[in-house]
Amino acid sequence: MNGAEALLRTLADGGVEVLFTNPGTTELHLVGALDSVPRLRGVLALFEGVVTGAADGYARIAGKPAATLLHLGPGFAYGLTNLHNSRRANSPVVSIVGDHPTYHNVFDSPLTSDIAALGGWLRGPVRRTENAAGAGTDAAATLADAVAPAGQIATMIMPADVSWADGGVVGTPVAPRPTPAVTEEVIAQVAQVIRGGEATALVIGGPALREAGLYAASRIAAATGVRVFQELYSNRVEHGAGLPTFPRLGFYPEQVLEQLAGVRQVIVAGAKVPVAFFAYPDQPSCLVPEGAEAHVLAEVGQDAVAALVQLADLVATGAAPDVAEPRRPALPSGPLTLQNWVDVIAALLPERAIVIDETVSSGTALAAATAGAPRHDVLMQTGGAMGDGLPLAVGAAVAAPDRPVVALEADGCSMYTVTALWTQAREQLNITTVILDNHAYAILRQEWAHFSRRPSAGGPDANPLFGLADPAVDFVRLAESFGVPATRATTAEEFAEQFSAALAEPGPHLIQAVIPPAA
Amino acid sequence: MNGAEALLRTLADGGVEVLFTNPGTTELHLVGALDSVPRLRGVLALFEGVVTGAADGYARIAGKPAATLLHLGPGFAYGLTNLHNSRRANSPVVSIVGDHPTYHNVFDSPLTSDIAALGGWLRGPVRRTENAAGAGTDAAATLADAVAPAGQIATMIMPADVSWADGGVVGTPVAPRPTPAVTEEVIAQVAQVIRGGEATALVIGGPALREAGLYAASRIAAATGVRVFQELYSNRVEHGAGLPTFPRLGFYPEQVLEQLAGVRQVIVAGAKVPVAFFAYPDQPSCLVPEGAEAHVLAEVGQDAVAALVQLADLVATGAAPDVAEPRRPALPSGPLTLQNWVDVIAALLPERAIVIDETVSSGTALAAATAGAPRHDVLMQTGGAMGDGLPLAVGAAVAAPDRPVVALEADGCSMYTVTALWTQAREQLNITTVILDNHAYAILRQEWAHFSRRPSAGGPDANPLFGLADPAVDFVRLAESFGVPATRATTAEEFAEQFSAALAEPGPHLIQAVIPPAA
Repeated sequence: MNGAEALLRTLADGGVEVLFTNPGTTELHLVGALDSVPRLRGVLALFEGVVTGAADGYARIAGKPAATLLHLGPGFAYGLTNLHNSRRANSPVVSIVGDHPTYHNVFDSPLTSDIAALGGWLRGPVRRTENAAGAGTDAAATLADAVAPAGQIATMIMPADVSWADGGVVGTPVAPRPTPAVTEEVIAQVAQVIRGGEATALVIGGPALREAGLYAASRIAAATGVRVFQELYSNRVEHGAGLPTFPRLGFYPEQVLEQLAGVRQVIVAGAKVPVAFFAYPDQPSCLVPEGAEAHVLAEVGQDAVAALVQLADLVATGAAPDVAEPRRPALPSGPLTLQNWVDVIAALLPERAIVIDETVSSGTALAAATAGAPRHDVLMQTGGAMGDGLPLAVGAAVAAPDRPVVALEADGCSMYTVTALWTQAREQLNITTVILDNHAYAILRQEWAHFSRRPSAGGPDANPLFGLADPAVDFVRLAESFGVPATRATTAEEFAEQFSAALAEPGPHLIQAVIPPAA
Repeated sequence: MNGAEALLRTLADGGVEVLFTNPGTTELHLVGALDSVPRLRGVLALFEGVVTGAADGYARIAGKPAATLLHLGPGFAYGLTNLHNSRRANSPVVSIVGDHPTYHNVFDSPLTSDIAALGGWLRGPVRRTENAAGAGTDAAATLADAVAPAGQIATMIMPADVSWADGGVVGTPVAPRPTPAVTEEVIAQVAQVIRGGEATALVIGGPALREAGLYAASRIAAATGVRVFQELYSNRVEHGAGLPTFPRLGFYPEQVLEQLAGVRQVIVAGAKVPVAFFAYPDQPSCLVPEGAEAHVLAEVGQDAVAALVQLADLVATGAAPDVAEPRRPALPSGPLTLQNWVDVIAALLPERAIVIDETVSSGTALAAATAGAPRHDVLMQTGGAMGDGLPLAVGAAVAAPDRPVVALEADGCSMYTVTALWTQAREQLNITTVILDNHAYAILRQEWAHFSRRPSAGGPDANPLFGLADPAVDFVRLAESFGVPATRATTAEEFAEQFSAALAEPGPHLIQAVIPPAA
């Protein structure tokens, strides 16, 4: 057995089922070894940003570690941005990066670079395997790191000569570290804060945004008057009929300060203490209101759900959660607008859907509209880097082939990783992509207007560098070029008809929803 | 004047004319300041890999520094791979990366990352500007670093609060460092090596691959019998009628060892000592033949051209260069093949063309076919990372709007940065893109076959992860979706007709040349 096969067998033994990849020469023996490990499915993408975003989506939905295989430093670099998003989602990802044989790097041939520096940028551990006998052990350790309580990007650099050398030994699986529990003392302290009766906000995030956490938070709110908020960007949110729903913290500092106005105590569980996404002149970065105290019930990586349930048992005995009734809006009519497109989604969303939300400025009305729709999971871009949506859809659909995936995608965002559509067609994934097409980086226009209210901004309100209308991308042709059937909607009626039709057919579809920007 | 304007004015004063960008919120004041500095043209791309590849192409053709503006670490990361290619091309690039205000980074908001680590990965200097008063000085120093004798990627991190703060001061231009000359002693030593009369190879690269260097190398060859070779991948090669032409070093170690068989002395000028692009079992990494001596006439960044001219004056007095006669092949007929498509290019290539060669396995016959075509420049991918071709074409066309750009692009390579077509349409650049479509990562199939001759390879000859036929990309629709008129050719006649028509019309065009892989 060569080192490559030992690596792959170790990952498969550890529960890895899919290897997302865009390989090159230095990875060929790993590609070859895939034939010997049929438990591990190789999924090809045409660009590394798709590989890594798909791994992220897979991990979030499968609840299992994802693995990627990339080509030396330059291939890793192309995939780095969505690994950043993935890191912010705390998704467990084993990132295998092929390299030249170690003896070759000293010659500085064109593809040579400091791969470990890129792994370090992701703030995860980096291993370089030295020989085939150690490949399995290193793979097992890398996998254990990836599935640490707060999932992370664990990088394993695999020199080509380690891959091709005989003497590979499969590694013994390393037992995953248990998620650390929050101490009873901390829970009691937070209960004491709530019992103090001051105006209190509870910000929940990460795993607390699924059923058990939502229920517990809602019980606490019902019994104590604590106001619960959802963090701004989450890796996976359960949403819809039968579940409690909470307002999301705003994007702008002043929105959050208004949401938290009068609050004297801020508690976080599975989320960070609220900070501004971007900084603006004369606005604070830390969004805990002045004079308020902040308390951490559960840090990211601690068992936030159990802590919330225990807290609810202390302060909300007998209280019932407040859940959304099943309720769908009527199908709207007339031209598509920023307000009515979400009603089409909410009216027609199928059971058990996975919704990818990379809507940026077009999606502000989405959560409210879908609160009574059939229960679904929402995956968001977590690291702020555009281009995660289409790949997330790929990974989610690979993880859950029996669930419909609905990818709601801003036009600007879709352009970073558009070849994800090719992988959707190749794998015949059940994904309905909706491109929210306003021919602009509307978020930048909005940000510019936001700055321009301040004295030092200057410049024009509409800058040509924010416009995507010249030329307007023909998303129908674009999707068709990658083998994805596509249509265009400009009215709510067209959109509803096309959305229903797309969901009724297996395989991927795309709808270009042309929505003029708000006046 | 705010810091942003001071930065841009300093770059413009230093000769920077184009800012390639995909900006975000932290760059808005730089975008706004562009209005105040009309000498600096903003060129928008939809993905950072296009931004950076375009900057590379611009720098190579304009002979001037290029500038890029990217959005924090994640935007920089998307652009990193083509900056790697650019670094290997020694292109001078000022890479401006916007960042949160320095006071904001401590809060670790989602887009926060260690930007300097990414700049360091490119092995270039990294500056973080501290205040508006220093922005101009830092910009001037960054520009001076970029245009160092061996051009490099110089990164300047620009916090948003430095951009928006008043008190900006334009920096004084820093005089570029002169290209170091090779000492007469070294030239005399190399002359002595040649006079020794042993079998000698001279490998030339970088600036030595333009007229003056080619002439000098050819004179040396004519007078002394030294065999001259062109390095494998070059940033810019002058080629065609009236110029000497030399064989390129091969991609595989055994090819190079055969090219250099019997050679006792290897001299390099503007190129590195030949090393294997990839390492293979039982093949050497260093490709200087065993027992041969290596000599550096001019390191990368030294004045290789002057050194070659001086060397020629020592060892080749009176010798004339051997130049290619004007000669075009006849237009071929019948189905397109790996052999005949290059004859179409060679028969029809216009005067003063810029040819982008990202043909990978499809382009091996190109250089020989075009040796007698009208003189042209050839830009290649230099760092081994796929996806540089379409962006290089963008940058070359921006740099030389009066010259026809012909981008020869392998299908697999085109997928990494395909939205470059949108920028081509937006800027109405005179680019004819030819997609060499064999529905495969043919290079990986070739590499696999290469490994499989060796004992430890294993696995199948044709792996599904190397195939791009399922689904086959419809490059015509793809180009049209981005506003680029496109056609498809399967015969040499069709290809010739479409290539002529595309060249005759202004603006971008694309031809999908369907070329079955060799049996």
